Amino acid sequence: MSDLDYRALFIGDQAENGKLFKELLGQLVDEHLGWRENYMPGDRPGIAVRDESTPEYVAAQERLREVMADLSQRLRGGSVPWNSAGRYWGHMNAETLMPAILAYTFAMLWNPNNVALESSMATSQMEAEVGEDFAKLFGFPGGWGHLCADGSIANLEGLWYARSLKSIPLALASTLPETVAGKSEWELLNMSVEEILDALDTLTPEQYDQVKAASSRSGRDLQRLGKWIVPETKHYSWLKAADIIGIGLDQLIAIPVSENYRMDIGALTSTVEELARSHTPILGLVTVVGTTEEGAVDEVDKIVALRERMLKSGTYFYIHCDAAYGGYARSLFFDTDGRFVDYEELADLHRSHGVFSHEVSVAEDVYQGFKAISQVESVTVDPHKMGYVPYAAGGIAIRLKKMRNVISYFAPYVFDKAVTAPDMLGAFTLEGSRAGATAAAVWAAHRCLPLDVSGYGRLVASGMQTAHRFRDFLKELTFIIDGRVVRAFPLHKPDFNMVDWVFKADDMVSLTQVNELNQKVYDLSSYLSGPEYNNIFITSHTTFSTDDYGESPVTFIKTLGFDETEWKRVKSVTLLRASILDPYLNSDELFTYYTAAIKAAFSQRLAEVLTS
Amino acid sequence: MSDLDYRALFIGDQAENGKLFKELLGQLVDEHLGWRENYMPGDRPGIAVRDESTPEYVAAQERLREVMADLSQRLRGGSVPWNSAGRYWGHMNAETLMPAILAYTFAMLWNPNNVALESSMATSQMEAEVGEDFAKLFGFPGGWGHLCADGSIANLEGLWYARSLKSIPLALASTLPETVAGKSEWELLNMSVEEILDALDTLTPEQYDQVKAASSRSGRDLQRLGKWIVPETKHYSWLKAADIIGIGLDQLIAIPVSENYRMDIGALTSTVEELARSHTPILGLVTVVGTTEEGAVDEVDKIVALRERMLKSGTYFYIHCDAAYGGYARSLFFDTDGRFVDYEELADLHRSHGVFSHEVSVAEDVYQGFKAISQVESVTVDPHKMGYVPYAAGGIAIRLKKMRNVISYFAPYVFDKAVTAPDMLGAFTLEGSRAGATAAAVWAAHRCLPLDVSGYGRLVASGMQTAHRFRDFLKELTFIIDGRVVRAFPLHKPDFNMVDWVFKADDMVSLTQVNELNQKVYDLSSYLSGPEYNNIFITSHTTFSTDDYGESPVTFIKTLGFDETEWKRVKSVTLLRASILDPYLNSDELFTYYTAAIKAAFSQRLAEVLTS
Repeated sequence: MSDLDYRALFIGDQAENGKLFKELLGQLVDEHLGWRENYMPGDRPGIAVRDESTPEYVAAQERLREVMADLSQRLRGGSVPWNSAGRYWGHMNAETLMPAILAYTFAMLWNPNNVALESSMATSQMEAEVGEDFAKLFGFPGGWGHLCADGSIANLEGLWYARSLKSIPLALASTLPETVAGKSEWELLNMSVEEILDALDTLTPEQYDQVKAASSRSGRDLQRLGKWIVPETKHYSWLKAADIIGIGLDQLIAIPVSENYRMDIGALTSTVEELARSHTPILGLVTVVGTTEEGAVDEVDKIVALRERMLKSGTYFYIHCDAAYGGYARSLFFDTDGRFVDYEELADLHRSHGVFSHEVSVAEDVYQGFKAISQVESVTVDPHKMGYVPYAAGGIAIRLKKMRNVISYFAPYVFDKAVTAPDMLGAFTLEGSRAGATAAAVWAAHRCLPLDVSGYGRLVASGMQTAHRFRDFLKELTFIIDGRVVRAFPLHKPDFNMVDWVFKADDMVSLTQVNELNQKVYDLSSYLSGPEYNNIFITSHTTFSTDDYGESPVTFIKTLGFDETEWKRVKSVTLLRASILDPYLNSDELFTYYTAAIKAAFSQRLAEVLTS
Repeated sequence: MSDLDYRALFIGDQAENGKLFKELLGQLVDEHLGWRENYMPGDRPGIAVRDESTPEYVAAQERLREVMADLSQRLRGGSVPWNSAGRYWGHMNAETLMPAILAYTFAMLWNPNNVALESSMATSQMEAEVGEDFAKLFGFPGGWGHLCADGSIANLEGLWYARSLKSIPLALASTLPETVAGKSEWELLNMSVEEILDALDTLTPEQYDQVKAASSRSGRDLQRLGKWIVPETKHYSWLKAADIIGIGLDQLIAIPVSENYRMDIGALTSTVEELARSHTPILGLVTVVGTTEEGAVDEVDKIVALRERMLKSGTYFYIHCDAAYGGYARSLFFDTDGRFVDYEELADLHRSHGVFSHEVSVAEDVYQGFKAISQVESVTVDPHKMGYVPYAAGGIAIRLKKMRNVISYFAPYVFDKAVTAPDMLGAFTLEGSRAGATAAAVWAAHRCLPLDVSGYGRLVASGMQTAHRFRDFLKELTFIIDGRVVRAFPLHKPDFNMVDWVFKADDMVSLTQVNELNQKVYDLSSYLSGPEYNNIFITSHTTFSTDDYGESPVTFIKTLGFDETEWKRVKSVTLLRASILDPYLNSDELFTYYTAAIKAAFSQRLAEVLTS
């Protein structure tokens, strides 16, 4: 049987599937209304027929209609058309999947709260199944996962895990010293997660509680737990997380990114070795799979290998993988039997599923980066990014389910201890109440599109291919504006579906001029030049500055014809930035049509900026 | 003009307004689809007509239909009928408002992300308006508010505010000592929020950043900031929050609750005075307006007065009000001109708006508790509880908008500094990405039902009145089961819409027997005895134990005929617990009908338990 055409699962850039959407929505709503009508149908209704004709009742209905009309006008006038096939390439937003929208709407009518099974029997089970999907996606056979508000919360939860686990050996030493007899403080602070969990396994429930009470949740020892290593480009959610979790920004160590915007493994190795030499503990490290600015995929395999090597000489650190953006792309490497294939088989697998229709492939270092996620302790993954599920749907997976016992709390009134499965979520997560509708949405999306090459793999690849082709298109792009030659300079070969680029007139002699040009093009290609509904092309932008990027942009700056001196003078470069999630542009015809439209849009904007 | 009949704003327990719901939903969906069709209508469509008849496309549509059928079956079979007028009184869940459901569904079709204006022009503005609504509701004329995932996150954010602000004077002392010259450490740790903000106002932007970098976000001084005071009944979200934020559970001080389940002001006063005497700093205090187990409203006025008194002798503490559950009830005290009325005017105001149709009124101490919220620094309020908005919609308000500058972060790629209003939310909140649809939902609910006596006031009062009458009903309830007399014992006069009670057979001589009886009645009246759809009455339960409640349940235990010795022996009491949010039972006819049905349900269950 051939794979599904994922385009049938979107409403469509021009509402091509609008009729199906309405049909299914109407059917689901009818099924819900029928459920209400027929639950104890002999009961006296809450609203009597005679109530419905009173002036107060009619007035309320009128108010409702007025508010809905106002809502409609405001949303239609103030929304971004990221449904469009080729008029919006900017933030990591696109069409979202019909199954997710329909499931959310339907489940919301029952208003389940997945904090506890008692208030969400159906959707708690769905969240448990989604958690299993995540664990499988990241190669955690003994793992677990759940949904959360967004990537910032998932990252914070990952850091909470790291901090709590790292503090357990110190807590053991202070409460039950015999369990870690003979270990020095340095050894205690370099026990692996497995060793820590094994030690906890030997305790009675009372001892377990006693140790937890003496762990980092007590507030003790936070500054002794060590350094938290992040990429120099540090997404602000990592600063917030280190602040909130109490370890503090002073404990952050930023590792430079290399010219391909991945964590610089050489710099990382030196830092880790130096910390080990000076017996400075390392709490953990964040590796990023899919950076939000450049779509770079860290060499997670090399980071994991470094840890294995260091462990031999007694240094250990927790690894959290921030795959909020890139996580779903791991589907590309699973065949339909759920097997993570070898790199040598990948091209055949992709060919047999028509994953790429052009000369695009996944480089081996990117494959190895994705593969090694199975060795980290926790992963952030956002269904509301590459899962094509509406906001807000973040997620997290952990490699070993019992890690969660280290952070858990119980609230007696929501949890009945007699019930053990599916899980009592509020006790094991940062958040309490959460929408069961979100679980229904992600569940429905995963059931329509499996997390393997045939499902999400093909969908994610669609954007990657278009990004690749768009980059090639930009390389050749030249404009003559008022006699001046203007060219586009794409950043680098993207690991993922992100394209960054810069326009530059040949006669520009300073990076400052170039930055001004690109800022102005952005201003005309964004919400700043609204109304968005009439905007012929919308994109986003970003700035690389020495503070966050060090010298890594120098290679790119040189392609623009500037030398290092100019970089050191200006210290930042403004780029246009397009995350391409488009599910439609695999067709040559459409790609040609929309890139021509985009070229026309650029031409018009460049003229506006350069001749004003 | 008379007030609106809020019953017209619900789908209805038996889908009485289902037709209107479907009409409005269909209209909104059509408006969205039309918007898609007509954005650049000359563009080549992403899906061509010929694509739609391929086997892959048809197979995807079939899959979608199958998944939706499965979804429907699972939701109908595994959801709680809290739409019912009188068959579900348990957790703080009920019907949700049509405007909120419709607005969420509609806005979700555009998938706005309120992390930044760039991706949510319309809904970011709505969130700003909702924030203004909250600031007004709590009496914060210079305040600010926003939505968040849930009450746990709002509580954590409140603690983040407290921790960050408390650390600023120490940061000033270490970085710019001249700004706090002459102050002792004790004085630094007892500066009020106003003093701290005034000191920050004198700094240059560079100095401000320098001070922030040395504040608690650095990880320094967390243990020096002092004690965090919580009620002894400590909702587990407060334990999690103290853990996550890094101050730690060791810094918690639990204050007993009195026999009415409010924070014991006498005990609080002694503790605060003792801490002041020993120069132990107090980071802050949590006061609860609407406890989740008993519906108790703290005497916030007395807590605020205590702080004012202590401030005269140099002791200050931050106050966060956890009004996740009770916050919306503050609407009861605003007239339609937006004035918070005096207590003397309240009865007249309520009479003129038909707030209560029976002998129910708001006690003066409860009124004063609500009134004094205007003096605290931050407040948690959950639209998904008494706002009758679907999950997940939490919220927080702060008394002074510029407090948020102390916790803020910036991510260059999402925020354009040229734009200052409406706010760039992700920089000022714990979460990053969040659903603009949530903002649309809460906004639409607030626009249909104003946050005053005529809107939410009347709606919230409806549940309070039914709770009050239900308690009176329980007091008179007696059963003869197999010759044994069984009575119901309600807990206390509820401050809010919560009713807790216990069944006891007259011949029971031990509290253990009573607890067993009530646990078994709960088991038959909950999801544990599913399917829920056929359950004739569903409620929830709770346990008061000495660990969390100390001696406060003794008064209640005595009404059951037990003495203190029995309490000390058994150490816990199991209660049935009903949060009554019902919008329908203001009608005598309905109240009589459903209480008779509930009595029959109890009779059947008691017989099942006692004769088995």
